[in-house]
Amino acid sequence: MTELGIVKRNIQRADQAATERLTKLGSATVHEAMGRVGLLKPYIRPIYPGAHIAGTAVTVLLQPGDNWMFHVAAEQIQPGDVVIAGVTAECTDGYFGDLLATSFQAQGARGLIIDAGVRDIKELHAMNFPVWSKAISSKGTIKATLGSVNIPIVCAGAMVNPGDVIVADDDGVVVVPSAWAEKTADAAEKRESFEGEKRARFAAGELGLDMYNMREPLAKAGLKYID
Amino acid sequence: MTELGIVKRNIQRADQAATERLTKLGSATVHEAMGRVGLLKPYIRPIYPGAHIAGTAVTVLLQPGDNWMFHVAAEQIQPGDVVIAGVTAECTDGYFGDLLATSFQAQGARGLIIDAGVRDIKELHAMNFPVWSKAISSKGTIKATLGSVNIPIVCAGAMVNPGDVIVADDDGVVVVPSAWAEKTADAAEKRESFEGEKRARFAAGELGLDMYNMREPLAKAGLKYID
Amino acid sequence: MTELGIVKRNIQRADQAATERLTKLGSATVHEAMGRVGLLKPYIRPIYPGAHIAGTAVTVLLQPGDNWMFHVAAEQIQPGDVVIAGVTAECTDGYFGDLLATSFQAQGARGLIIDAGVRDIKELHAMNFPVWSKAISSKGTIKATLGSVNIPIVCAGAMVNPGDVIVADDDGVVVVPSAWAEKTADAAEKRESFEGEKRARFAAGELGLDMYNMREPLAKAGLKYID
Amino acid sequence: MTELGIVKRNIQRADQAATERLTKLGSATVHEAMGRVGLLKPYIRPIYPGAHIAGTAVTVLLQPGDNWMFHVAAEQIQPGDVVIAGVTAECTDGYFGDLLATSFQAQGARGLIIDAGVRDIKELHAMNFPVWSKAISSKGTIKATLGSVNIPIVCAGAMVNPGDVIVADDDGVVVVPSAWAEKTADAAEKRESFEGEKRARFAAGELGLDMYNMREPLAKAGLKYID
Amino acid sequence: MTELGIVKRNIQRADQAATERLTKLGSATVHEAMGRVGLLKPYIRPIYPGAHIAGTAVTVLLQPGDNWMFHVAAEQIQPGDVVIAGVTAECTDGYFGDLLATSFQAQGARGLIIDAGVRDIKELHAMNFPVWSKAISSKGTIKATLGSVNIPIVCAGAMVNPGDVIVADDDGVVVVPSAWAEKTADAAEKRESFEGEKRARFAAGELGLDMYNMREPLAKAGLKYID
Amino acid sequence: MTELGIVKRNIQRADQAATERLTKLGSATVHEAMGRVGLLKPYIRPIYPGAHIAGTAVTVLLQPGDNWMFHVAAEQIQPGDVVIAGVTAECTDGYFGDLLATSFQAQGARGLIIDAGVRDIKELHAMNFPVWSKAISSKGTIKATLGSVNIPIVCAGAMVNPGDVIVADDDGVVVVPSAWAEKTADAAEKRESFEGEKRARFAAGELGLDMYNMREPLAKAGLKYID
Repeated sequence: MTELGIVKRNIQRADQAATERLTKLGSATVHEAMGRVGLLKPYIRPIYPGAHIAGTAVTVLLQPGDNWMFHVAAEQIQPGDVVIAGVTAECTDGYFGDLLATSFQAQGARGLIIDAGVRDIKELHAMNFPVWSKAISSKGTIKATLGSVNIPIVCAGAMVNPGDVIVADDDGVVVVPSAWAEKTADAAEKRESFEGEKRARFAAGELGLDMYNMREPLAKAGLKYID
Repeated sequence: MTELGIVKRNIQRADQAATERLTKLGSATVHEAMGRVGLLKPYIRPIYPGAHIAGTAVTVLLQPGDNWMFHVAAEQIQPGDVVIAGVTAECTDGYFGDLLATSFQAQGARGLIIDAGVRDIKELHAMNFPVWSKAISSKGTIKATLGSVNIPIVCAGAMVNPGDVIVADDDGVVVVPSAWAEKTADAAEKRESFEGEKRARFAAGELGLDMYNMREPLAKAGLKYID
Repeated sequence: MTELGIVKRNIQRADQAATERLTKLGSATVHEAMGRVGLLKPYIRPIYPGAHIAGTAVTVLLQPGDNWMFHVAAEQIQPGDVVIAGVTAECTDGYFGDLLATSFQAQGARGLIIDAGVRDIKELHAMNFPVWSKAISSKGTIKATLGSVNIPIVCAGAMVNPGDVIVADDDGVVVVPSAWAEKTADAAEKRESFEGEKRARFAAGELGLDMYNMREPLAKAGLKYID
Repeated sequence: MTELGIVKRNIQRADQAATERLTKLGSATVHEAMGRVGLLKPYIRPIYPGAHIAGTAVTVLLQPGDNWMFHVAAEQIQPGDVVIAGVTAECTDGYFGDLLATSFQAQGARGLIIDAGVRDIKELHAMNFPVWSKAISSKGTIKATLGSVNIPIVCAGAMVNPGDVIVADDDGVVVVPSAWAEKTADAAEKRESFEGEKRARFAAGELGLDMYNMREPLAKAGLKYID
Repeated sequence: MTELGIVKRNIQRADQAATERLTKLGSATVHEAMGRVGLLKPYIRPIYPGAHIAGTAVTVLLQPGDNWMFHVAAEQIQPGDVVIAGVTAECTDGYFGDLLATSFQAQGARGLIIDAGVRDIKELHAMNFPVWSKAISSKGTIKATLGSVNIPIVCAGAMVNPGDVIVADDDGVVVVPSAWAEKTADAAEKRESFEGEKRARFAAGELGLDMYNMREPLAKAGLKYID
Repeated sequence: MTELGIVKRNIQRADQAATERLTKLGSATVHEAMGRVGLLKPYIRPIYPGAHIAGTAVTVLLQPGDNWMFHVAAEQIQPGDVVIAGVTAECTDGYFGDLLATSFQAQGARGLIIDAGVRDIKELHAMNFPVWSKAISSKGTIKATLGSVNIPIVCAGAMVNPGDVIVADDDGVVVVPSAWAEKTADAAEKRESFEGEKRARFAAGELGLDMYNMREPLAKAGLKYID
């Protein structure tokens, strides 16, 4: 239930070792390894290219045009966390800038995912605090209405529970339920391990048609070559 | 957790009496009464005007372009239910038409909410089976990949648990957590009861400025009248 | 200048006779007659088909998620006015419903144009109070922050001054500056007067190519017929 | 090749009998019967509900903000045709209104599909001339630049050749290549013929799970029922 | 009034000293300092990151697909100006490229804001002429229809008068009415001056909850901490 | 006709010399030189700035969420080709990543244009394989349904035939029909050759008003200067 005015202090963070393993993997590999669930909609984009993080979720439910809960959330951050925020209605305001980023970074946060807007883009880049957002906007927010911290939220179409692992890079953002962190890391690493050999074979000119034995199933499906 | 390949058979439906009371109330009143959470994004629109339903949620998680789970869901429908469906990725395909509607209606469903497309609009209207959807599309779907039925889902930005009450009308769609059904019905009916008197006073020409004693707070906030 | 916290009481309404003449003309004809300026963006749509109004503008500048100024505006309405509202940031909330509509109608307003959302669609239709809006949403608004009434505003990309004539029908919404009301009515009526004869000739099978003598300019422009 | 300034006079219209058979079938059924190609994007919507047409395509390539070619196209219309228009760039202008509709109808056109805007909605409805469009807009167009008539065009993501069959109803718009008209009518009628029996069985409470023998493939795919 | 075919030569530019002071401030700070009005919608984005300008507005009203007025505007540019352009209808065409940029830069313009598209992105970056636009498009424009220069315009939802100060950076674009330039510079500098100390305290680990004394108002609003 | 399950092996590629000449020209210049047809919609954007390619089209028709045909297409690539892909329905999935890029690059492809999503952005940049796409998404695709290779396709609103020249840079993507390659190269080079002199004159402060003799036509059109 989306209850307002709640801060949950003790949350069950995903296994730390599994989280660190996921930090080395890309969002695409992790998404595949999970069976293709948990992806945020692709309108969520990094504010600058090249960032790549993973960490445990501190969730924030925001009200439209109001970033009060970010200050409440700051106190709940532990080193290695990623803050992830949904809003109760669509909003593109700039909820977050360099001051809050300084605070979050000082508490140990690795980045922010927000289904709304941010500002101070240049400063956030300079201080190396990555954000994935729906919009960039100069418009600030007020501090007047309660949301919640560390309750289950919806962010860009994905359900997030506090303590889940968030993996974010240039390709997008994936949520790994905390109970699945280890098995997902296992599966993702396994996928990754096969890639080097395949890349070499592709680079040498071998075709996927042959590497994956696709010619027969394609013919069965009815593919016709014409000249 | 968004687990695939699961059908939960025994779900805790919201209190029936409370559900029937909510059926008589509009989505706007219910949303206010809940403290302004639980609203689906306004891109979800009724396929024809004038429908107004409430019922207990049978949730469906669909794969893009695949409506297999709707047949699985049909068996889980009880009279008074509303089927509500999310998709693991954005899709506008026409997942649902008059045949499935005939099946759902025969099982007792009052309507469908879907974060994707539907088709057979004219037939659905004729048979009085209301649908709220993101799109209308002739494009059909296949039956190849598992989703789930009666797990927690995200639909148009809102979290839905099986058994929650869904209230839908021309203004939009609201999700009332099953545990809140009674208190929400209480609060919503109370709001509603005040409306008749207010409407009469407005119709007689009284201003909201006076009815709600707004002149003083407006002046305090700094409102200036100029000529 | 977009100043907040201002209500202008004495506005110069467009000539009443010209306004009534414009009431009989469609938005498309009026837009042409003005030289193709003054049109609101086409995402502004009527909440039900068939409404057609014209009236003098009472302008409202709203804050996101806050409809306080509508109550202030109600007192400024005179019979024959149309209320037109912009917002300082993008918002789809349902700012306006049947209670406010009862108040506006009692004061003599002919309709509402709003660059945001409305609700109580069914009731607004039943009471015959037309609205052109960007969205329909159950989400209500608060009353906490000042906007302004009867200052120049931007609504859906168009500049509106208090007292301008607003013409709205199924095709869209056009703003006629008050100083242009008469000459626009003249020009629009003239355009309209030619239409009947043209319609008859088209219905009889005459081609626009001949009626407008287009064959020569088309040939000059290089049009080639092939078989 | 998208050549400008061309009018092709003699086009090969699809077989008339096949076209009439397709007129009785819905866009969804026809799209399935064709193997799921040929559908216009679902942002193309009818301007009023309930229209259902099929006819042979007269194609028009328009320039942005310029409807000159519609007058050229009018001369190429034969009874039973549907005019379908693409634009060389995105545009929402109101290219078409009641005068042109009178002309098209007089020449025998059954309707218009346009990847842009139209106006005079109320009049088009009154005269029963259906249009499927991307937008509704009061904004008119000029007559200054050449496009083409009866060349291959792209409309809302679909390729259309002159003479193809266009099927349009409340669910969307489908293009049937003229060479495929008969076999598509065959396949679509066959699909349709099965529907009555299925509908009766669904109405009697039979489940799709049983009607389509889905229980075994679902179990094989790994579907788990829990309580 | 949006009059076409007008060029105003003598415009009242904002105070030069105030403009230079605003050049050193970000769009977010300036927007706050103005009381949160004057912001362009966030779909207006810089074509390359890192640019930051302020200057006095030369306004241009363009017709869709027609950039004739840019040549007229070039003559009205004075060193320190920023050109800002609206369009009478939605358009994404590439109105502006490296040749016009060379001309504008030679006349002393600091950049361009346009509610449409631009092209020659690579060249504009190389010559350090920043543009904030709605789109990037190879599609050129013609020179056939009159707009206006230095009349009041609407650009991306904001009203702009010639001579206003435009502040643009990676976060967005803000319009400061010329009469407000000084007081806005005062207020913005004051806001800015507090930021350094706050940043240091956040970096040292102090929480906003304590720095801004939020704990009591949060408790009063009903915030509950649970474990 | 959009036929599924077809691979055309022998396609007529555009003249190689003309293609190489077009490689040196920008998409904007080429689009003008062709008479303003053939442009992909501007939502197609490069995944990293600065890439600029031209090559002969290998076309791919994809099914939603299915990239099987890319492996079939790889075998049809010849050095100097550009792969260009449309989808039978709207989709933002990540169809293409670094493994397929390695394969395409090994076969001699210069880049990819896709009316859907891609992933492995960082790796694609590092290996210098440019892509122009509608979206970026971690979501992978399956290999289950046939599309076609080297048939006429629609990509982002443009018709593409196999063998056409594709020109892509930071401004967008243009399709040059193979039969037009030479004359387009001629016309584009001619346009380009005039630019250097104009740039120098603009840089020296000459106005377009004078350079293009616009003062008289502007006056004729009715332009009025006021002070």
